[in-house]
This record gives sequence, structure tokens and C-alpha cells, in this order.
Amino acid sequence: MAPLRSWFPIPPASHFSLANIPFGIISTTANPKPRLGVPIGDHVLDLALFTANNGFARQSTIQPHQHVFSELTLNSFAALGRPVHSVVRKYIQDVFLENTSYPEILKDNAALQKEALVPLKEVTNHLPLEIGDYTDFFVGRNHAYNCGILFRGPENPIAPNYDHLPVGYHGRASSVVVSGTPIRRPFGQIEAEKNNPIQSPCLRLDFEMEMGAFVCKANKMGEPILIDEAEDAIFGLVMMNDWSARDIQFWESTPLGPFNSKNFGTSVSPWVVLIDALEPFAAKGLPNAQQTLPYMQQKNEKNQYDIKLKVDLTSQSGQTATVCKVSATELLFSFPQMVAHHTIGGCPMRVGDLLGSGTISGNEPGSCGCFLESTQGGKVGITLSGGEKRMFLEDGDTVTFSGVCGTEDGGLVGFGECSGTILPALKL
Amino acid sequence: MAPLRSWFPIPPASHFSLANIPFGIISTTANPKPRLGVPIGDHVLDLALFTANNGFARQSTIQPHQHVFSELTLNSFAALGRPVHSVVRKYIQDVFLENTSYPEILKDNAALQKEALVPLKEVTNHLPLEIGDYTDFFVGRNHAYNCGILFRGPENPIAPNYDHLPVGYHGRASSVVVSGTPIRRPFGQIEAEKNNPIQSPCLRLDFEMEMGAFVCKANKMGEPILIDEAEDAIFGLVMMNDWSARDIQFWESTPLGPFNSKNFGTSVSPWVVLIDALEPFAAKGLPNAQQTLPYMQQKNEKNQYDIKLKVDLTSQSGQTATVCKVSATELLFSFPQMVAHHTIGGCPMRVGDLLGSGTISGNEPGSCGCFLESTQGGKVGITLSGGEKRMFLEDGDTVTFSGVCGTEDGGLVGFGECSGTILPALKL
Ligand SMILES: [Ca+2]
Ligand SMILES: [Ca+2]
Ligand SMILES: [Mg+2]
Ligand SMILES: [Mg+2]
Ligand code: NI
Repeated sequence: MAPLRSWFPIPPASHFSLANIPFGIISTTANPKPRLGVPIGDHVLDLALFTANNGFARQSTIQPHQHVFSELTLNSFAALGRPVHSVVRKYIQDVFLENTSYPEILKDNAALQKEALVPLKEVTNHLPLEIGDYTDFFVGRNHAYNCGILFRGPENPIAPNYDHLPVGYHGRASSVVVSGTPIRRPFGQIEAEKNNPIQSPCLRLDFEMEMGAFVCKANKMGEPILIDEAEDAIFGLVMMNDWSARDIQFWESTPLGPFNSKNFGTSVSPWVVLIDALEPFAAKGLPNAQQTLPYMQQKNEKNQYDIKLKVDLTSQSGQTATVCKVSATELLFSFPQMVAHHTIGGCPMRVGDLLGSGTISGNEPGSCGCFLESTQGGKVGITLSGGEKRMFLEDGDTVTFSGVCGTEDGGLVGFGECSGTILPALKL
Repeated sequence: MAPLRSWFPIPPASHFSLANIPFGIISTTANPKPRLGVPIGDHVLDLALFTANNGFARQSTIQPHQHVFSELTLNSFAALGRPVHSVVRKYIQDVFLENTSYPEILKDNAALQKEALVPLKEVTNHLPLEIGDYTDFFVGRNHAYNCGILFRGPENPIAPNYDHLPVGYHGRASSVVVSGTPIRRPFGQIEAEKNNPIQSPCLRLDFEMEMGAFVCKANKMGEPILIDEAEDAIFGLVMMNDWSARDIQFWESTPLGPFNSKNFGTSVSPWVVLIDALEPFAAKGLPNAQQTLPYMQQKNEKNQYDIKLKVDLTSQSGQTATVCKVSATELLFSFPQMVAHHTIGGCPMRVGDLLGSGTISGNEPGSCGCFLESTQGGKVGITLSGGEKRMFLEDGDTVTFSGVCGTEDGGLVGFGECSGTILPALKL
């Protein structure tokens, strides 16, 4: 596929080629009020400014909804629905094309370019949507298998329900933060000796490499979103780090699942990549040995996306290691299937709800999406560039996810980064 | 204790004596805009109207915050903090006292009485607070023991962590509804034969009698609410029915806990009873054989409330049965202890968050807070007034909770009702 050529300089290695056009919430020193922005190459198009300067003057579909671009979150834009997202994305692409149909809007408007195109470095990102409810699934089957061996034993690592439904649990919406927010090492109960807990800072702090999906469609309580409508319920994707306190998790999770081990912080990347931008990279996920029940049968077999994910660690002293490389196709169920399952009993979704995929791990060495797996539960250390070792995360460590689809030739569709640095536990 | 005597007629059997003064959100046919109301006997004081007619003219503490009484939820009122709630409650009590200090406000103002005191029957209730996150705990130890026998076996019914921490899971905030909202029987996956699920309407639909607490204090991510501050974090209590689909729950809950079996609807009673009103009924909860870790040690040993709870069932044909009578003291941890535990790792609370106690059951026959226990997992039927039998809930059944403290002599402090009627499953 030939890349879309622009009159505006877009570095070929940028995650934000014209093939992408993701959406986020930005502020700047000059204008601290949060508003919508679209990254293009090394810059961000300030959509509030663009709108105020008649940027959408030539677009009758969008005009009645222009107010959404000046809001504090993406929720109202998301609520307009996928057909409108599609129109907005294509229009912005067109405005930046070498042969744009609308040269007067920006290409020939040097004054607006100067004002509305802010260098990415000068932009502060905020949480892209207000999240009503957050659900974390567990559909990375390799991860479930590897953890099952550690927790359930090698005879029976996968529970009987696993292949029949996307296993998941309700998460804590208030603890979801945007990339760059520091993460404080949590206190909690950990087992000092068998069945004998103490209160202590977490000693086995971990990351989890996941994809997150934001919901753009609401349903009434008692009325499911059926599988054929569920694709239109996904606004777009982000990368998600479900920071996990393994020792707290191990002690607290019987019988109702993880709780404080997961609610001290979950980081998401700032730019929501629309499903339209990902569709060229649609691919099959993991095969399922079980026949899926009718309410989750999806016509489209290519219901995952071949996003190349990478996890890098940098220690306080600056030593580094790439600790995971994996494709986002290593999942057993798709986000539309998760929506269909989540709502089959009538659970109400609201626009802005966040669904996490669960940790994504491959089968090869170096493809595990968390330390619990790659260090085999804290047994095999990972060596950083200068010789430091890691079983779990130490204070001052920075974990950075990146994710990208496609090639520089065709124009990258990337997620940028999702990062967080570990602060030491409070002294209590 | 002598009752507080009022110039306004308050039937002695009313849950809403002057000793109570709970808060809720109301609307009427005449004025459909939701606003705050306080039930007094058989009437509700419309706080928006009362405020607009200088009801708080004599109260300098409240005056700068009067706008909160016209809002759509109790969140802003709750956020003012317990000392302000206390002043407002005492002021409203005083306005209704026989020997009120402020006769001109309402006692001698027949016009305002007529306008601002609406018959309870004419009022529509709405969800009292906007709920950011909802957590359901499991600290009814008798319930945990009885369910443990069914699920874990009689040798080891209680998990090793149970007495050390308030076990809980994140619930679905979007599915919390006010009393009176019908509950649709959920569809879902149930095990037809061992490890072989089908999609089906739930066949084992249950209620769970719980108390709910609304949070009135926010904390920053990473900074716990310590136990000594946690009492001030509880705005007040409601009754809560955590409707549960036992067959869906049984199949889905390994290893991450209940999910769709709990997110199709949770009902709360409409009036939030302030902690101040409950304090005369403070009592010790269940004894704990384990030493509680320091971060949960509460100075006040009487950290539960002797609320007399009752569950009534009415079938579509009008047959009835009282299926549970139990005291809310049958809990192992208090709500302040739940707050301290929930935030010890830094999880952020927001004003309006809801905490459920878990099902409250006693040890005697007739004191089980759900059918799973009282029918021994669907083995021993319960007989209604006209001979109908129940193992679980049938379509058209109405479940009604009531809860009350004190005596008619002293003035009742009650919760009114929390009810819901089961609608048949959709045909999918
Ligand atoms: Ca996870
Ligand atoms: Ca419950
Ligand atoms: Mg998390
Ligand atoms: Mg529920
Ligand atoms: Ni609009």
C-alpha cells in the first residue's frame, strides 16, 4: 500500500502517519484547558482551535456536532458513533493530503498552521475518556496457561470455562490514569508464612501488557448488545498496563478474584486509535478448540489486529532491557465478543467504558506480557544492559509499552507509548 | 429515650421519625426535575422548594452551600462532609420540633407547608447518588460459612484469608438502580452437563440481603484513607439487594470471581440514613478469632448497627412469605474497616462510591439473607402463604427488604423499603 502523501512534513518513523488519525485529550502551557487533539507526525492538531477557525466549515456532517471537539473528554465525540468517527477521520486525512480537496482550510493557511499545529513535545496528555466502568478480561490464552501452571498446577492449568467465555472481572474505574502518571508501590497484606499475613509494601510488583478498548455505545439495563451490533460498540483501542501486585493478589484472590492487587493504578496510552485505522491490520486470533455459543459467534473471523507490541524497562540508573515482544493477535476472544458476553445478561454499558484484553503473551521466549511469566514466578532473573537483575519491578523502574501496525512504506499506525515509573511505597 | 415531639403529624410506625432525617432524590408529577428530599412521617420535605423559600435563612453554616439541595444527586451534599451533614440534619429536626427555635420557617408558615411537604405516595424516587465505583464485600461471616460448605466443602468452608481482611470484589456501577426498578431475569452461560455450557435464562435466580454504604470523602491515588479518618468517609447507609444468578455464577467464577452473575442489576433503598442517625444503635459485630492488622484496628468496638432487617417475597398471584429476619450486626468487619482496607494500597475513592457489606445471615433458621443458603442450594423448598414453593425466584416475584432501628416509643430510624420485581427473560 502506498503511503498517503502530505504537504505537511511527517517523519516516516512516526506512529502518527496519515493512515492513523487517532484522538486524545491535550492541554498546553499556553492553554491549560483540556480539549481534543489529533497527532500528525511530530505535531498535534488542536481540534478546539481548528474548529474555532472554521476548520470544519466544509463538512456539513460534522458541523452540527463541532462542540464535541472543545470538550474535556472524548466521550461526546465517541457517542456520535462509528459512522461519524469515520467521516471526521477521513476529513482530517484529506485536509493533510498533498492533493487536499480543501487547500484553503489549512494547507494555504499559514497562520492557522502556526496556531493549531503544536509540537507533540509541548503537549500534556490527559485521560482520553471519562470511564464509567472498567472491566479487565483474561483472554490472552498463553498468559492464562502460563499462570495456570504456576497457580493451578501443570495437570490442569486452564479452568473448564476458559474456552467457552471471555473470563473477566470488574476493575476499578477510578484508578485508570494516562501514560506518564507515576505509580506508587502499594501497601497491602502479604503472606509472611503460610496463612499468616503481615502488612507490607508489595514485594512482587509487576506490569501486564494489555490492549484496552473504549466503548462508544450504550445499552439499557436488561437489553444485550448482540454480537452483530457489537463491532459498532468499539470506539477504538489503547495500550494498557494493568499494574499488578502479585503477592497481594496471591493472598487476597480466594474466592472472589483480584482486588487491591489491581486497583492502585492502571495506565493507558493517550491516543485512541480508531477501529477504522486498524482494519487494514485485521488478523485471526488464537484458534479455539471449543465451539463458541451462538451469542458470541462473530461473522468476521479476522477479529484481532496484528499490532506489534514491545515492553521496555529502564532502571533508575538508566540500564535498559526489552522485556517483551508480542503480537496483539495472541488473544482467544475479540472485543466485540467481550461486549456481547458482557451484556448478554443485560449489564448496561455506557459510552466511555473501558475493556482490557488481559495480558498478551506469545509462546516463544521473550514474548511474555508480564514478569510473573517471564521470570517463572520470580525464579529466573532478567538481566538489564548494565548487569542489573530483575525478578519484579524495583523503585524508580520505568516500564514503557509501544505498539505499532504496518510499515514505514505504507505509513505507520501506532499507539505511541504507555509508560509509568514506580515510586517507593509510602512510610505508614 | 423519649421521642422528639413534632408539631407535624408523624405516625408512630413511620420509619421516618424526627430521630431519622435521611436524604434522597425525588421528583413529582408537578415538578419532574430530580432534587433532594427528606422523608418525615408520611410526607417528604422538598428541599429545593424549602431552600427557595428561605428555609435555611436562619442557618449561616448551610447558607453558602444551599445550591446542593437543588442538584440531581446527593453527591455535592455528601461532599460537604459529616460535620455539615450533622448541622443540616439537626436543623431540619429543630424546624419540625414541637418547640422549634424557628417557628416562622415552617410551623407558622402554612403556605410553605402545603407546597414543600409532599405525600410520600406522590413522590418518585431516583438513585440517591451518582456512583463512580461500586465494591461488593463479603463480610457476612455466616453467609460465607454457609456458602463455603456448599462450594468448598464442610472441611474447609472459610478461606485462610477470610478473617484477616474484608474479602471483596469490584462490582458494576452502571447496574445499580433504585428500589422499584424491575429486574430482568438474565441470560447467560450455565452448565448443562459437567463442563458443557449452554446459553439459557438463569434458572437459579436469587436475592442477597446486604447493607450499602455511600462514601463522602475522596483520596488521591497512592494515598490511603487511614482507619482513624475512615469513619468520616461514610456518608450513610442504604439497604442493598445484590441480585445473583447462581447457575451463571457457579460456571463463570473460576478463577477471577463473579461477573455476569452480579452485573444485571443491584437495587438500593432510596433514602440514605446518615451515620449520625444510626449512632444510638451502634453495637458490636461478629467476634474475630484473628488479631486484626494495625491498619484496620478501629478504636470504636461498637462499629456495627443493630438494624432489624426483614425480607418478604410476594408472588405474582399474591402469595407471600417472610423469608429472612436478621440483624445487621452479623458482620465481621465495619464499613470504616472496609474503607481502610480498600485504600491501603492507594486505590482512589470518590464521593458517591458504594460499598456493599456482603450478604447478611444469622445462625438460626429463618435468618439467611439469600435463597442459596435458606434452600440449601435449591434442595429444601420454602412455602408461601397459599402453598406455592420456592427454591429460587420465579418470574413475577417481588422481593422487598425492610430495615429499622429502635422502637416506636423512641422514634423509629428506618430505611423504608428496597424492592424489585422479576421480569421474564427476553427471548433471544
Ligand atoms: Ca489484567
Ligand atoms: Ca453480594
Ligand atoms: Mg489495574
Ligand atoms: Mg449486583
Ligand atoms: Ni452534537
